[in-house]
Amino acid sequence: MTKLVLIRHGQSVWNQEDLFTGWTDVDLSPLGVEEARKAGEKLAAAGFDFDACHTSVLKRAIKTCNLALEAMDRLWLPVQKSWRLNERHYGGLQGLNKTQTAEKHGKEQVHIWRRSYDIAPPVLEEGDERLPDADRRYAGLTPDQLPRTESLKDCVARVVPYWTDVIAPQVAAGQRVLVAAHGNSLRGLVKYLSGMGDEEIVKFEIPTGKPIVYELDGELKPLDRYFLD
Amino acid sequence: MTKLVLIRHGQSVWNQEDLFTGWTDVDLSPLGVEEARKAGEKLAAAGFDFDACHTSVLKRAIKTCNLALEAMDRLWLPVQKSWRLNERHYGGLQGLNKTQTAEKHGKEQVHIWRRSYDIAPPVLEEGDERLPDADRRYAGLTPDQLPRTESLKDCVARVVPYWTDVIAPQVAAGQRVLVAAHGNSLRGLVKYLSGMGDEEIVKFEIPTGKPIVYELDGELKPLDRYFLD
Repeated sequence: MTKLVLIRHGQSVWNQEDLFTGWTDVDLSPLGVEEARKAGEKLAAAGFDFDACHTSVLKRAIKTCNLALEAMDRLWLPVQKSWRLNERHYGGLQGLNKTQTAEKHGKEQVHIWRRSYDIAPPVLEEGDERLPDADRRYAGLTPDQLPRTESLKDCVARVVPYWTDVIAPQVAAGQRVLVAAHGNSLRGLVKYLSGMGDEEIVKFEIPTGKPIVYELDGELKPLDRYFLD
Repeated sequence: MTKLVLIRHGQSVWNQEDLFTGWTDVDLSPLGVEEARKAGEKLAAAGFDFDACHTSVLKRAIKTCNLALEAMDRLWLPVQKSWRLNERHYGGLQGLNKTQTAEKHGKEQVHIWRRSYDIAPPVLEEGDERLPDADRRYAGLTPDQLPRTESLKDCVARVVPYWTDVIAPQVAAGQRVLVAAHGNSLRGLVKYLSGMGDEEIVKFEIPTGKPIVYELDGELKPLDRYFLD
């Protein structure tokens, strides 16, 4: 039996300011820093330890990973960063105020963008400075891989290959893995591992800084899944 | 022409308390944190950017790397951590007060341990809790690789293969590399790259948090070397 731990990053400054974030690279808020540290302390107190860590290329997840590892005195562990673990791309909603967007498009529409499985927010238009194309960290991606918006389904589709190709072989080899990422990229892993349906995963809430523990058998099937309190 | 940047970690809490450190995994002091941030700011202001980063498995170097990258808004860059970039192992001197050690063994002797090229401090005895053998981060090392003490010569001998096998191929492929490490492991790189003699390298001082810039030609021969002020 191997344990796998998933952590959603602590509160970001845009969570605080009620803005849609997606791939925008915003920092942790002071509360988010505290949440990340406490997640590490909780893991250490509960006897968890790791051999390998994975995070996105967005600083709120990277800092959550680093702060948790520092609290566990495990800063020396290898950390791999991948765009595949990024938050869902929020398209034309990125940077907009959530309340104002609801007033403009209606609460119904915003609820659909946020909580449907396969409907994506409006596409970013050519020339929009929010497009990730010019960002050097995405230089290795093909045009097909570079999102202009994403539904949760799109997000799951690009997270799962990272599980299959990178994380799963490590877990299968007996390594204890920590993944520090985002609400929707972690939903992708949870959906895949727990075999959840489309309806079920959109309702599955992942609180910030609260570790999700998977106990996996030799075939990487979940024996148990719980939040670490 | 490719640029390579070396940074010695900021001040540690044991630098502050006048203790021999070596492989002891002590944290940065508040001043050290500030030095690391400023190094990143200086590099960004001077137009430096990187593709790959390397550091040791000791937190004072790892945090220096992370803090500098954060100041450059480059936390997403890949960072590899290796014991080969660790500080010189200080053997039986680790944890001892520098002034008290000089009183006990004489200033002459301490000067020899600190500033000779091939004389190592006293060996750690079997059973000494300062031995790195039980530390999980060194579990992959052979008994031959695990130091009980090191001269600067020993330290250089285990740093250079990391240059040859890991860093040099990246630089040769045109990657801009940042190395955040320690006074003596960086001396190893400087000795090798600049072809310094044994006498010369022991006298070469590397201040904390002050980037050393190498400009290298296609054969990785230095065209220039300077401190970034």
